[in-house]
Amino acid sequence: MSNPILVNTLRGNVIENRHRGAVAVCGPGARVLHSWGDAETPVYPRSAVKPLQALPLVESGAADHFELSNAELALACSSHNAEPEHTEAVHRWLRRIELDDDSLECGPHAPLHGKTAETLIVNHRQPGRIHNNCSGKHTGMLTTARFLGEETRGYIKREHPAQQRWFDALGDMAGVDMRQLPWSYDGCGIPVIAMPLRSIATAFARLAAPDELTAGRAGAVDRIATAIAENPFMVAGSGRLCTEIMELTGRRVLVKTGADGVYTAALRDKGLGIALKIDDGTGEAAQVALLAVLRHLDALHPDELETLGERCRMPITNTRGVVTGQREPGELWS
Amino acid sequence: MSNPILVNTLRGNVIENRHRGAVAVCGPGARVLHSWGDAETPVYPRSAVKPLQALPLVESGAADHFELSNAELALACSSHNAEPEHTEAVHRWLRRIELDDDSLECGPHAPLHGKTAETLIVNHRQPGRIHNNCSGKHTGMLTTARFLGEETRGYIKREHPAQQRWFDALGDMAGVDMRQLPWSYDGCGIPVIAMPLRSIATAFARLAAPDELTAGRAGAVDRIATAIAENPFMVAGSGRLCTEIMELTGRRVLVKTGADGVYTAALRDKGLGIALKIDDGTGEAAQVALLAVLRHLDALHPDELETLGERCRMPITNTRGVVTGQREPGELWS
Repeated sequence: MSNPILVNTLRGNVIENRHRGAVAVCGPGARVLHSWGDAETPVYPRSAVKPLQALPLVESGAADHFELSNAELALACSSHNAEPEHTEAVHRWLRRIELDDDSLECGPHAPLHGKTAETLIVNHRQPGRIHNNCSGKHTGMLTTARFLGEETRGYIKREHPAQQRWFDALGDMAGVDMRQLPWSYDGCGIPVIAMPLRSIATAFARLAAPDELTAGRAGAVDRIATAIAENPFMVAGSGRLCTEIMELTGRRVLVKTGADGVYTAALRDKGLGIALKIDDGTGEAAQVALLAVLRHLDALHPDELETLGERCRMPITNTRGVVTGQREPGELWS
Repeated sequence: MSNPILVNTLRGNVIENRHRGAVAVCGPGARVLHSWGDAETPVYPRSAVKPLQALPLVESGAADHFELSNAELALACSSHNAEPEHTEAVHRWLRRIELDDDSLECGPHAPLHGKTAETLIVNHRQPGRIHNNCSGKHTGMLTTARFLGEETRGYIKREHPAQQRWFDALGDMAGVDMRQLPWSYDGCGIPVIAMPLRSIATAFARLAAPDELTAGRAGAVDRIATAIAENPFMVAGSGRLCTEIMELTGRRVLVKTGADGVYTAALRDKGLGIALKIDDGTGEAAQVALLAVLRHLDALHPDELETLGERCRMPITNTRGVVTGQREPGELWS
C-alpha cells in the first residue's frame, strides 16, 4: 500500500512532481481523529520534536536556576536560521553557563539564512558549530547537564543522561517506549528515534491540551508553549513558515518543522496534535501539506489564510521571473 | 496505480525517504525492451533532451558555417556548471556569431558549481544570463537563427523557428507529434513539452543506433554524440555524474540529466535508449536510479562500477562527518 498524494507540483497544466505522505491528527486521550496514509510505521521526526526534547531543561530546574529567558527557551526548541540574533543569543547563553562555542558538539553547516551564509563567504569565514540550526537545542542540553553537575563532554552520546532524559519525556508524552524503537544519528549528531506518526501526534495533542498531564508536566509544557509563542522569530527566522504562522496565530497554533519533510503542530484552542511526513523528504511539499491540514481542520482564520496566501499554493518562478507552475495540495483535500 | 520505489534513503536501518518513479528502455524499431512503472503518461524531460534539441544546429549547416568546435557542440547539449571554462567558451562563441551575453534570453541563476558561485559572491558580482546552465543550448539556438538570417530577439518564444525546429527534430526521433503534447515553460524560458518516457527512450535508442535514420540525420546524430563523448566536462562539469560517467565510458554510454529527477542515456554499443523520471523530482535519487538501470543492463564494466562506487549507493554524511545512511536502489533491482 502506498501513501496518498498529499501535494502535486504543476508546470503549466501538467503534474510534474507528486509527493506522497502520511498525516496523523490526534485529540485528547491519544485518540486518532483523522489520518491519511500509514500513521503506524515509525518515521524519524528529526527536529519536529524539539519542543518536547526541551522538557528536561524546564523540569530539571535548570531553566530556573540559570534564569533562562523565554527567548532562550524558544531557542532550545528551534531550528534557527543562524541570523545574528540567533547566534549572538546562543553565544551569550553559553557564556552564562560558563561554556563556549567549542562546547557544542553539533557539526558546522552554512547558515540556513541565505544572506547570513553569503556574509560569511564575503568575509572569508567558515561556518561554525554555533551556526548549526540545532545549536540552541544543544545549548539547552548542555545547560541541564551543567545544572546537574554532569560531564558535558560527550553529551550527544546515546547513553549520556542529557539524551536519556528526553527519551523519557518524549516517550511519556507520546505513549511509547523510546528504547524499543529503531534509532540512528541525526544531522547534528544526537540520536534520532523513529516513531509512529500517531505517537508523535499524540505527544503534540498533550502539548496542545495539557490537562491530562501531572501539574508539574503541564506547567513545563505551558512554559515552553508560551516561550515559543512569544518568540516565533527565535524558533526559525526570516522567511520561515514556522515563524510566519506563529507570528500570525500567537498562542493558538504552534508548528515545528523537521528535516526531510516533517511537520508537527499543536492546536492549543482545539486540543489537537498533528504530525506529518512527506515520503520523499521534500520540505516545500511538507509546507504545502501542513497548510492543507491546518485548513482542513479550520485551524486558521480567513484573514490568516489570506496573509499566508502564496504559502498555500506555492508558485514556482523560473529564471526569467515567469511563474511556470505551483505546488498545491493533492486531490485528497478538495 | 503508483510507480514502483526506485530508490530508498536509509538512516541507520530505517528507510527515511522513498523515491518512486518510472523507467523505459527502448531498442531498435522503437521496441520497449524493459519498463518499470508508467512509461506512457507524458512527463517533462527538461534538459535531458538537449542532445536532440541540438540537431537543427548541425542539420541546418550552421555548425559548419560557423566552424563550431566539438567543445562548442557539447556546450550546446549541456547543463553546465558555469565554471570559467564553460562561461568563457560560451562568451567567445557568442562573439563569433556577432552577438553578446545580453543576446541570451535565459534568466540568470547562481552557477551550479558551488566554488564558482562563491567566487561571484566574494567579488560582489551578480550571476548573469551566461551563468544559466542552459546558456550553451541558447547559444546554439541563436547560432542557427543567425545563420538562417532570422530575427534573434524573441528566439525563445514557442512560435519562433528556433523552437519549432527542435520540435520537429525531437518529434521525429521520438515518433510523436510534439505539437499535440502538453507544454509549458522551462526554467530557462523556452517551451518544455511533456512526452511519454517510452517516446523519449525511443529517441535515445535512435541516437544510440542511428542506422535506421536517413544518412543526413545519422551523420548529425553521430557528430553530436562524438562531440559529447570527446568533451564530457563541457556537458556538465566538476563533480557531476554525467561528466564522470562519460569520462569513464567514452563513446559507449552517453548520459544527460534533466531537472526534477530526469535522466536519459544512449548505450551506443547496445543500441539502447533509456529515459527515467523520479516522481517527486529528487535529483540525487535519479542519479542512484540511473546507475541501477545501467547496472541492470550490464552497461558498465566492473572497473567502471568500482570507480563510480559511492555514486551507486550514495552515502549521507551528517554535520559531524559521520555517515548516517545512504541512498540505494529499491528492492526492484535486487
